[in-house]
Amino acid sequence: MAGTAQDHGGGLDAAAARFGGARGDWLDLSTGINPLPYPLPDLPANAWTALPDAAAARALGDAARAFWSVPDRAGLLAAPGASALIARIPALAPPGRVAIPGPTYNEHGAAFVAQGWQVVRAGAVDAAVVVHPNNPDGRVWAADALPAAPLTIIDESFCDVMPDASLVGLAARPGVIVLKSFGKFWGLAGLRLGFAIGDPSLLARLAAALGPWPVSGPALAVGAAALRDAGWAEATRARLDADAARLDGIMAAAGARTLGGTPLFRLYDTDDPAGWQARLAARRVWSRIFPYSDRWLRLGLPAPDGWARLDGLA
Amino acid sequence: MAGTAQDHGGGLDAAAARFGGARGDWLDLSTGINPLPYPLPDLPANAWTALPDAAAARALGDAARAFWSVPDRAGLLAAPGASALIARIPALAPPGRVAIPGPTYNEHGAAFVAQGWQVVRAGAVDAAVVVHPNNPDGRVWAADALPAAPLTIIDESFCDVMPDASLVGLAARPGVIVLKSFGKFWGLAGLRLGFAIGDPSLLARLAAALGPWPVSGPALAVGAAALRDAGWAEATRARLDADAARLDGIMAAAGARTLGGTPLFRLYDTDDPAGWQARLAARRVWSRIFPYSDRWLRLGLPAPDGWARLDGLA
Repeated sequence: MAGTAQDHGGGLDAAAARFGGARGDWLDLSTGINPLPYPLPDLPANAWTALPDAAAARALGDAARAFWSVPDRAGLLAAPGASALIARIPALAPPGRVAIPGPTYNEHGAAFVAQGWQVVRAGAVDAAVVVHPNNPDGRVWAADALPAAPLTIIDESFCDVMPDASLVGLAARPGVIVLKSFGKFWGLAGLRLGFAIGDPSLLARLAAALGPWPVSGPALAVGAAALRDAGWAEATRARLDADAARLDGIMAAAGARTLGGTPLFRLYDTDDPAGWQARLAARRVWSRIFPYSDRWLRLGLPAPDGWARLDGLA
Repeated sequence: MAGTAQDHGGGLDAAAARFGGARGDWLDLSTGINPLPYPLPDLPANAWTALPDAAAARALGDAARAFWSVPDRAGLLAAPGASALIARIPALAPPGRVAIPGPTYNEHGAAFVAQGWQVVRAGAVDAAVVVHPNNPDGRVWAADALPAAPLTIIDESFCDVMPDASLVGLAARPGVIVLKSFGKFWGLAGLRLGFAIGDPSLLARLAAALGPWPVSGPALAVGAAALRDAGWAEATRARLDADAARLDGIMAAAGARTLGGTPLFRLYDTDDPAGWQARLAARRVWSRIFPYSDRWLRLGLPAPDGWARLDGLA
């Protein structure tokens, strides 16, 4: 299969090949995916069998608009994962200079470079991308601190843990696109569902690039049910907050200082991230380290039955 | 939701709005989707929860290569539906002239036009698209009858009913891409799964346009199981052949002559397609007519419990 080659979390198979054990033996904390997913509703047979129809797409769109308080003048486009949108966004404008304050999620830069753009830290730019809150350090952006650019992408893939911080109100401005990821907060990354919210003329071009029926019938049905379930979201935020504090406590006792993150992943300062990764791997716990940092270790949250793997880490 | 506006089959909601009845009352024969889908296997929980990993993608790719006898030198790329590939293919070359012998499936022409191409019937061209067998008339192409073009797309979305006719052997040639659709023959159009098979350099560019993890975990798992099941495919071909003959018999008795099609859809010559569509709609059977033809009516095959709707049509 053809594919891309950015450094990502995941890749349990590679971890098992390097450190041993079967794939199923591992606890994967290398991603920022909620380990207690939204419970799958019963799916009607035609979610699988029929071409997804306009009514199902509308139901998902209505639920998404209500859940995220999308401004009326902003468009909304569902896609098979935020990554499908990230890959096409750089084609929305002629190649120029794009500001991507980092370090951050590396698919944005890779997608812009693949379309001939130059990635810069600051200065006059033709486009800007901020990840809000940022991955891996959890930095949040104030609306008036965003880089000024005619095309502005605000990636809120991890923002559903802190909805009050959302900048979705800016999505009604020309040239702005806010990205949302369904897989992370709702813990259903395999479903492939993400959203672009923003300038309707830009979204129409992204829609044309995706083609008709971009989102699967199961994703339309599960997404609509989950986005209508405000109670689940609220309870999940409380649980993730508590679990993040619990993980920080374990890591502090083991000598790792919390640098930041979100309630879906924690970033720790350590004196030897590779050594930490190997130590955790001996317990079949897979972590994330970063090619650009000799201090950082990132961990997602374990499911309730996974905490025992961290016992006695200190 | 943003979207495209080509004339398609499907759209039961629009049919119900126009002719009455609830969506669930209708028998949808407006598409060419197998009405007896591949039975869904049990899905592992991580097909829904985890980012689809390389091993699952490889398993699907291996099954697809074996099922379709893909030449070793041809690449293979899985996508969330053939439509996602059709939308991006015109960006593989600078806009020029594309031959699309028609009438045929209209998304190809729409996608090329959206990228600035000129669609022509014949002559010297920069690209060519053939649908093989063609939708709606069932025309099949011989390898030596294909239009000559540096970029050649062979859309085999409906070819799994007649595997001996496949031109996948040409997929090892530079500039050739063969498209396969999973949704139609396996009756799981909501799953969103399709494939490009062909020139590895072109497929690498399509992969970059799709972004990482383009295919859902459920689609990887269901697709791999189905493509390994040669017995189901063989039995399905025999059933579709028999059902197509049965439908032709009913329509002949009612005064419609079979013009062509495939065992997944039948094309009939009638003196009044709109009148036929209304007559069938009175029975809550939804059919396909074509804006460019005042003779053609297309019907898909009913499931076993759907035939009674056609009783007494003559």
